[in-house]
Amino acid sequence: MKVGVLASGTGTNLQAILDRVHGREGVDVVAVASDQPSAKALKRARSAGVPTAVFAQNEYAARADRDRAMAEWLAERGVELVVLAGYMRLLSPEFLERFPQRVINVHPALLPAFPGLDAVDQALAYGVKVFGATIHFVDEGVDSGAIIFQRGVELADATSADEVMAAIRPIEHELLCRAILAISRGAVSGDPDHPRRVVVRDRA
Amino acid sequence: MKVGVLASGTGTNLQAILDRVHGREGVDVVAVASDQPSAKALKRARSAGVPTAVFAQNEYAARADRDRAMAEWLAERGVELVVLAGYMRLLSPEFLERFPQRVINVHPALLPAFPGLDAVDQALAYGVKVFGATIHFVDEGVDSGAIIFQRGVELADATSADEVMAAIRPIEHELLCRAILAISRGAVSGDPDHPRRVVVRDRA
Repeated sequence: MKVGVLASGTGTNLQAILDRVHGREGVDVVAVASDQPSAKALKRARSAGVPTAVFAQNEYAARADRDRAMAEWLAERGVELVVLAGYMRLLSPEFLERFPQRVINVHPALLPAFPGLDAVDQALAYGVKVFGATIHFVDEGVDSGAIIFQRGVELADATSADEVMAAIRPIEHELLCRAILAISRGAVSGDPDHPRRVVVRDRA
Repeated sequence: MKVGVLASGTGTNLQAILDRVHGREGVDVVAVASDQPSAKALKRARSAGVPTAVFAQNEYAARADRDRAMAEWLAERGVELVVLAGYMRLLSPEFLERFPQRVINVHPALLPAFPGLDAVDQALAYGVKVFGATIHFVDEGVDSGAIIFQRGVELADATSADEVMAAIRPIEHELLCRAILAISRGAVSGDPDHPRRVVVRDRA
């Protein structure tokens, strides 16, 4: 399965994919794209010999144009699964139609709680005691697609986002890598009786 | 500390309080009230020798009148902490003012996800993989008060509310009893820098 990764930031999730999944069980990362020319994720990709591209918003008239160019580039490289690894923008409906049920995202909260940006700060402001991470299919909403994997972590005394992210990051890496491998094996499907419920048959 | 419990249903949380907390460390359950004359919780209270009362809505002109009568009865019995244990109604602002920061609730979800009725059914409909329970202070909103304790439980393959409740119920019982004992010890306070963050000093 050929994987394309979109990242806006430091790319620690991308690094986990490159270290643990890339080149194993027939999974290859063949493309890494970013909306940020300076994203550290691009450097990580180049270090692993993976082709990169930048699709900066200011070079396109509209979001849909940028997303179309990005989808084109990913499709040219044969991408079958698109992984959002710290990608901070909504994708256009047209992009999603191009990769139906084949775009996944990692989010640092137990969705549906705290969707959108700054999820950990939102959770700290609310005063929760359990934080967590979610891997989900991407739909047209904000972090609203069907959930593949989720894990919580109890941090009753957490007061800073750094502290929470230190606990969540390893969970994100593990669940995201597991999800990519499971999708590659054809082990991820929807419950026919309940389309929002994702069934993973052979969990590692 | 004298505790009053409000319950609408079978009263398994009440039973946990009676079994594990009542008569220990200076905590006594002195009153159990219900809005449902047939609530099994009332039977459990009588079996433990705890006075009970029913405040059925159809006997009062308005919710505020009923709540006033209930608050009066609890106050007469010297109640210092009101515990909602499967109590299915919103409390009037006047009731809450009578017991400031001294009404707590147990909710079968990781709030702020899935507030209100049928929380587990809501979570199943969404397709979450992590369920949980929350103990929180009660404010005028629906399950919106500051969180005292929370614990998640990963149930990736759950399809029925019974199955989920079987996993959540023991968590509810444990956290609710811990919260009552901690409040009784004076160990529960608000973070002065962040009023929604509850600090529990001596967790058992």
